[in-house]
Amino acid sequence: MVTPVVDAAAVARAIEAMTAALGGDAIQTDRAALDEFRDPFWVRGADDHDVAAAVMPKSVEEVQTVVRIANEHGVPLWTVSTGRNYGYGGAAPRVAGSILVNLSAMNKVLEINEDLGYAVVEPGVRWFDLCDALEEQGGKWWSSIPDLGWGSVVGNSLEYGRGHTRYGSHGSNICGMEVVLPNGELMRTGMGAMNGNKAWHVYPFSYGPSVDGLFMQSGMGIVTRIGWRLMPRPEKYASCWLHFDGDEIIVPVIDTMRELMLDETINNYPFLGRGVAANAEGQPDLDPTSQKWALRFALYGYEEIVTAKWRIVERKLGAIPGVQLGMKLYDGTDRVGPDQGIHDDRVQAGIPGMELLDLYKVPFGPDTGHLDFSPVGPLVGTEVLAMVRRVRGLYEQFGEPYAAGLMLLPTSIIVVSVMFFDPKDEAKTRAIYDNYDPMLKALAGEGYGLYRTNIYKMDAVADTFDFNDHAMRRFLETLKDAVDPNGILQAGKQGIWPKGMRDR
Amino acid sequence: MVTPVVDAAAVARAIEAMTAALGGDAIQTDRAALDEFRDPFWVRGADDHDVAAAVMPKSVEEVQTVVRIANEHGVPLWTVSTGRNYGYGGAAPRVAGSILVNLSAMNKVLEINEDLGYAVVEPGVRWFDLCDALEEQGGKWWSSIPDLGWGSVVGNSLEYGRGHTRYGSHGSNICGMEVVLPNGELMRTGMGAMNGNKAWHVYPFSYGPSVDGLFMQSGMGIVTRIGWRLMPRPEKYASCWLHFDGDEIIVPVIDTMRELMLDETINNYPFLGRGVAANAEGQPDLDPTSQKWALRFALYGYEEIVTAKWRIVERKLGAIPGVQLGMKLYDGTDRVGPDQGIHDDRVQAGIPGMELLDLYKVPFGPDTGHLDFSPVGPLVGTEVLAMVRRVRGLYEQFGEPYAAGLMLLPTSIIVVSVMFFDPKDEAKTRAIYDNYDPMLKALAGEGYGLYRTNIYKMDAVADTFDFNDHAMRRFLETLKDAVDPNGILQAGKQGIWPKGMRDR
Repeated sequence: MVTPVVDAAAVARAIEAMTAALGGDAIQTDRAALDEFRDPFWVRGADDHDVAAAVMPKSVEEVQTVVRIANEHGVPLWTVSTGRNYGYGGAAPRVAGSILVNLSAMNKVLEINEDLGYAVVEPGVRWFDLCDALEEQGGKWWSSIPDLGWGSVVGNSLEYGRGHTRYGSHGSNICGMEVVLPNGELMRTGMGAMNGNKAWHVYPFSYGPSVDGLFMQSGMGIVTRIGWRLMPRPEKYASCWLHFDGDEIIVPVIDTMRELMLDETINNYPFLGRGVAANAEGQPDLDPTSQKWALRFALYGYEEIVTAKWRIVERKLGAIPGVQLGMKLYDGTDRVGPDQGIHDDRVQAGIPGMELLDLYKVPFGPDTGHLDFSPVGPLVGTEVLAMVRRVRGLYEQFGEPYAAGLMLLPTSIIVVSVMFFDPKDEAKTRAIYDNYDPMLKALAGEGYGLYRTNIYKMDAVADTFDFNDHAMRRFLETLKDAVDPNGILQAGKQGIWPKGMRDR
Repeated sequence: MVTPVVDAAAVARAIEAMTAALGGDAIQTDRAALDEFRDPFWVRGADDHDVAAAVMPKSVEEVQTVVRIANEHGVPLWTVSTGRNYGYGGAAPRVAGSILVNLSAMNKVLEINEDLGYAVVEPGVRWFDLCDALEEQGGKWWSSIPDLGWGSVVGNSLEYGRGHTRYGSHGSNICGMEVVLPNGELMRTGMGAMNGNKAWHVYPFSYGPSVDGLFMQSGMGIVTRIGWRLMPRPEKYASCWLHFDGDEIIVPVIDTMRELMLDETINNYPFLGRGVAANAEGQPDLDPTSQKWALRFALYGYEEIVTAKWRIVERKLGAIPGVQLGMKLYDGTDRVGPDQGIHDDRVQAGIPGMELLDLYKVPFGPDTGHLDFSPVGPLVGTEVLAMVRRVRGLYEQFGEPYAAGLMLLPTSIIVVSVMFFDPKDEAKTRAIYDNYDPMLKALAGEGYGLYRTNIYKMDAVADTFDFNDHAMRRFLETLKDAVDPNGILQAGKQGIWPKGMRDR
């Protein structure tokens, strides 16, 4: 376990220099104000992830200035876009005493390309902002969005966040980045590595190696803009669901869904839920023994295509014993229809909202905290059932209620499960966090890794990626040391520590 | 311009050590045998890209041994999978006197996953081999393939090669790699960074940064296996074409194609050709003034979907004045139909062949050489017409016949043009290569970069990626120096030189 020590005097000097360079309005050092940046599910009394100050650059040049000052003084920065990231630590840094770089003032939609279907956004642009901008331009394009609309397009995508339209794999949706490197230099990726290149945000590769992946879940640079793929609004949109009662039915449902996704009948990223996020009518099912599942998915296209696809869906999914299948058909070009539907109708039509946050507050009231445990597996029915039963069994073993939301990709699945807790109940909350580690080890031992985790568990999850004595982590550390020799950016992010902080 | 000097005595010692470690059969030093690895369009008399020896490892462990010996002796390696790469230098290394690492003996299809639709292949597996293996397993799955079947799946994909089915963006088709790093260590990427992980070849991201892109067009490691996505054979497959005479018609055709690709009516990677590769009946059109264009594309899916899609295609593309539109409908599950069709029918159905090679020999007989010039632009009709005219104008200016094959992506396009020459005509061949540079500069000045180039032009193309004083190249050099401090792997690949060989 790494326990980095931050030189508070150096941090104070860096804050002074940043104040001089950016103006006092750009820097917060007031403790009450800084508490805003704590993990929203922070355990009261703990201060091991508090920031020393927060700086809010308004331009790329100011980000570069902040980075250069951090290098001069050798102090750690922790970057957030808007700092939501609920369940993963919010805006809180891995290393207490870091200076928070809050990018939420860089919130411009720099371009919406009406012909080519992409937007160029800064890190402070929220899903709400992007979708408003698309509406204002005439509503030809949809953006894929996650369940909550308040987060950052850039921040979510860099964490491999997920949405629910055709372009729901947000990490794959980025096309061309601009990055401030740890040495303060500005770099553009892909075709953008050429001045004035016209294909920066449309061609997905580089000449030579493609480096975009290096800036995902990473401390290799501060991404200051991305190209973001949009989806044309379809003529018709079918918001579909399938309900069943009994875990065993997962097997034929998953196998049929895989077939329908691989043959492109279903062309969005479906979601299969149980418990809080499971019910298509938006009501939580808090019975821990319940085996009621709700699957949602979408069909998009010209009317004759959606009609033909629905017939195929009825033939294949509808043939599974014990399922109820249904569909609402909307004009995809008309926002009003889905907007008046339930959350599932809206989120698969790129209409952002906040309604799911309320759902997450049901277990313990407004302060309900949650910790997500999200192993990835192959999209095979028997495998998914085994994973669900294994994870459910671990929840039962630790006496925690089980809620699950499974995110389907064409050939893999993220089996998100959610541990709810009341942060005011310190003992119980600590038990929840403690139980995470044996669960993690049990699943890793069976061949399942997590796709993402919170600041408290980054090292523990990194430990499970153990092929050839953690060859990947050692390779990433080599890269980290080369591009960030002073170790100033996102120390400890996803278990990658700079040289000066490693105890290995 | 970099002129690296290789220590021939050190190379001789390394060859000796490799012979001792791998056995004499694994090493070729005979000049006549080594000439096999020259650029197939090599200019007679030139020896500036000859190899000193070729080593053929049969296992990952032997690759590691070769890399370790190269580090010990500080000698440069140049890796090829099968060493085709026609038009880009074949198997020839950037640096003369390198030891060629020929991976063609590592030619096992390690897995075909019938449920999840992926193959795991070693670098020596050719398109022919993979497609044979898929046939043998029952033919449930298609692989995307390029026009020639003799190349390597791994080699082509790592160069961002392209195919013509739904999964025709080969760089995007890789899911999970195994890599021998320049220090000889073995690393697995993505979920494979965990021992025994079940989602290695199905989940496309990592925990933490994703490094797969670093090994594309790169000298950061030797990729010894990849996961490769397959496409389920569709119920029906429509092989479609559209012919027109007159460059101006490019504008509505491209704009309509973009719409049809973005709304997923057309779900393959279409190809628009003029000249040698243009004619759907497989005959070259060598008239340099010809404005006859042939577009090919495919529709895949259940019969009712393909039928509905074809009606949409007829409505949209068929409405453009001056075009002829046609289609052949095949049973996608039956290989025989497309197999009896023309090249276009086969290649869009994943049936590999060699017929295009003959077509490329028409201009100057069996020894015809070609140099490809392939700028990338946005998929907008007026832009594409402007690029075609600009490139055609440069060919006219230099008195070269113009042949073009445009590869359509959903929002971008690679405007491949082909300069044919007779390598026996040394003066003319040198002129072709010399003309490349002003063409490159002209296009770069207008915002177009190349997606790939041959060993002779790697530095020149890298020079055009000039944003912020070549920030991307400097970043890649930083990474290169960190992971390959002795500079042994692919020195100069895509203009990235190790520290000891840079003159900057």
